[in-house]
Amino acid sequence: MELPVNDEFYMSLALDMAERAQGQTGINPVVGCVIVKDGALVGLGTHLKRGTAHAEVHAVRMAGEQAEGGTVYVTLEPCSHHGKTPPCSDLLIEAKVKRVVVACLDPNPVVAGSGIKRLRQHGIEVQVGTLRERAVRLNDKFAKYITTRMPYVTIKAASTLDGKIATETGDSKWISNEEARLQAHALRHRHQAIMVGIGTALADDPSLTTRHDGVDGLQPVRIVVDSRLRLTPEANLLKVGTSPIVILTTEQAPVERRRLLEELGAEILVCGAGPRVDLKAALEELGRREIGSVLVEGGGALNGELLRARLVDRIVLYFAPKIVGGKHAPHSFDLEGIGRMADAITLDDLEVDRVGDNIFVSGKPIWPDHVDVKEQEGEG
Amino acid sequence: MELPVNDEFYMSLALDMAERAQGQTGINPVVGCVIVKDGALVGLGTHLKRGTAHAEVHAVRMAGEQAEGGTVYVTLEPCSHHGKTPPCSDLLIEAKVKRVVVACLDPNPVVAGSGIKRLRQHGIEVQVGTLRERAVRLNDKFAKYITTRMPYVTIKAASTLDGKIATETGDSKWISNEEARLQAHALRHRHQAIMVGIGTALADDPSLTTRHDGVDGLQPVRIVVDSRLRLTPEANLLKVGTSPIVILTTEQAPVERRRLLEELGAEILVCGAGPRVDLKAALEELGRREIGSVLVEGGGALNGELLRARLVDRIVLYFAPKIVGGKHAPHSFDLEGIGRMADAITLDDLEVDRVGDNIFVSGKPIWPDHVDVKEQEGEG
Repeated sequence: MELPVNDEFYMSLALDMAERAQGQTGINPVVGCVIVKDGALVGLGTHLKRGTAHAEVHAVRMAGEQAEGGTVYVTLEPCSHHGKTPPCSDLLIEAKVKRVVVACLDPNPVVAGSGIKRLRQHGIEVQVGTLRERAVRLNDKFAKYITTRMPYVTIKAASTLDGKIATETGDSKWISNEEARLQAHALRHRHQAIMVGIGTALADDPSLTTRHDGVDGLQPVRIVVDSRLRLTPEANLLKVGTSPIVILTTEQAPVERRRLLEELGAEILVCGAGPRVDLKAALEELGRREIGSVLVEGGGALNGELLRARLVDRIVLYFAPKIVGGKHAPHSFDLEGIGRMADAITLDDLEVDRVGDNIFVSGKPIWPDHVDVKEQEGEG
Repeated sequence: MELPVNDEFYMSLALDMAERAQGQTGINPVVGCVIVKDGALVGLGTHLKRGTAHAEVHAVRMAGEQAEGGTVYVTLEPCSHHGKTPPCSDLLIEAKVKRVVVACLDPNPVVAGSGIKRLRQHGIEVQVGTLRERAVRLNDKFAKYITTRMPYVTIKAASTLDGKIATETGDSKWISNEEARLQAHALRHRHQAIMVGIGTALADDPSLTTRHDGVDGLQPVRIVVDSRLRLTPEANLLKVGTSPIVILTTEQAPVERRRLLEELGAEILVCGAGPRVDLKAALEELGRREIGSVLVEGGGALNGELLRARLVDRIVLYFAPKIVGGKHAPHSFDLEGIGRMADAITLDDLEVDRVGDNIFVSGKPIWPDHVDVKEQEGEG
């Protein structure tokens, strides 16, 4: 197939560039920018890292004088405020570009349309919405953080077709296939932190490093939810890998244990009086520390608590084509039962795909409305 | 797209015709036949019902003298034996066809290649294997029955993403969407019998009739597994629908209850001394009664027992994009836990599809080999 040459043709390249940088911009959005002049590509840029040049800066620099009279394709509305760098809308005005095509508006309330307004005020033709849906999706983590200061939380779980994440003897090697496991590492790459419950940390002794096929990857912060600091000093987490270790605990954790784990390099965050870690407070604290996205990799108890507390933004499930049975085999979601099927937590914005003999299912959890009402009544 | 005119072009029509007759040929295979002469379609036929003309007979009849020198496309090897009708290989020889294209051999050990041999002995050019995979799949139920005299057993279940077939309060309305429910009725249409456990019969009070969108459908025999004859005389099963009701029970069932249910039109089959219905013996008995395929529609206990006893040929699952939690919420497979993930029952020949916001997963269960060995040791 010959791709037709049009706005989508250039915008999709800008999106491809932004997509490749996912995970490396911290709480900043990923942005790609392409400049075209007289039918030819003249500039390319992508935002690489928080505090460094925006995508437009790279692209205008590459285009040089060619930017004048050209068309700029940018995946996110150019900024209009002085942040860590000067506003990109001013840069484009100075470069005398003719037209700016924007995929989506900036969800940042500080920008929110003002970048576009500024461009138009200076006689630049602005078009918004080209490949919007893909652009919005690309920055769903940024949008959550910039509007709430809470990290975007993704739960990832791999289960059998009967919903078990291990057999009743605890054996989980292997549920998912190699391709699905590589996808899971790619998910880690795209989040600022990985979180597990102490049950999983003790049972699987994971190092929570990322592994890819032939290339290096980012190593997100590793977080363990451990209300009583049961993590052993011998844990792989404390011995393997270079990224920081954060342990979320409660006031009930023994002081000497805390000192020991700190000596081994872990940072301890006390979240509430206990007995359980206050997950909402914990995520708020992570947000304050500019962790804008967390990938939760189990187990069922942590998944269930986060779901119950409505702290989850996306659920990614891999199903292996297996059945293991067992009333006591652990589940992907250890959740107090919902009484009516109509009140089920439902996945919206559903994606389904085959990954070899595994099945990929992803969606945004939606909680039933009237349960909200009930909770309000309970609090009132 | 313009379909190229070739052997696949005509064979796919023959397969389409056979496919539309699935469910109405009893323990017989479905077969389609197309005759082409001088570049034009001259004959069509499909086997409609056990004991009536085979596909080739209809097609040769339609073609008349045009069959001479023509090419016959037939989805299953023409029979060579005198069954309820004379052998079709002889018919094609008499009709002086020039070439026969066969999708797949007859799994019936009485035929198994002899039909083709006979055609070749009479100078007819025979080609085997055109669209073989689709043809084999179309008659998987026939192949199971003709080689084992046991019915082909399909388990169908609809669950949430966490493997629950109802909430912990027993609510299951609705898990699957309307499109998935219509597909489930189409599955009923293609089986000779529908089977449920007494738990499902009492909880859901189903009539187990089939319902389609704007057309009538076949009404398979309805079977309830009910070891102690707990089915109530008020059950919809006994009041709604026209197809036979068979209740599988044990010697422990009360005699007066048996008499009552028989008076209400049910047929009672005693399968073993109890306390549970001997499902293998039951399926053997159904096989003797020329029921060649059974669709099992729950619940978890029956599904689990059939899986454990390795009596299942295919599993069809519909997942709703829901999570309901609950340790005690019923599962799709109430199965004694398998200890090692490597010993899981695995679905082979996997199909995955989206049905609106539901997910369709279908496969052939494969039991791990070394569990076989263990069982043999136990018996030895």
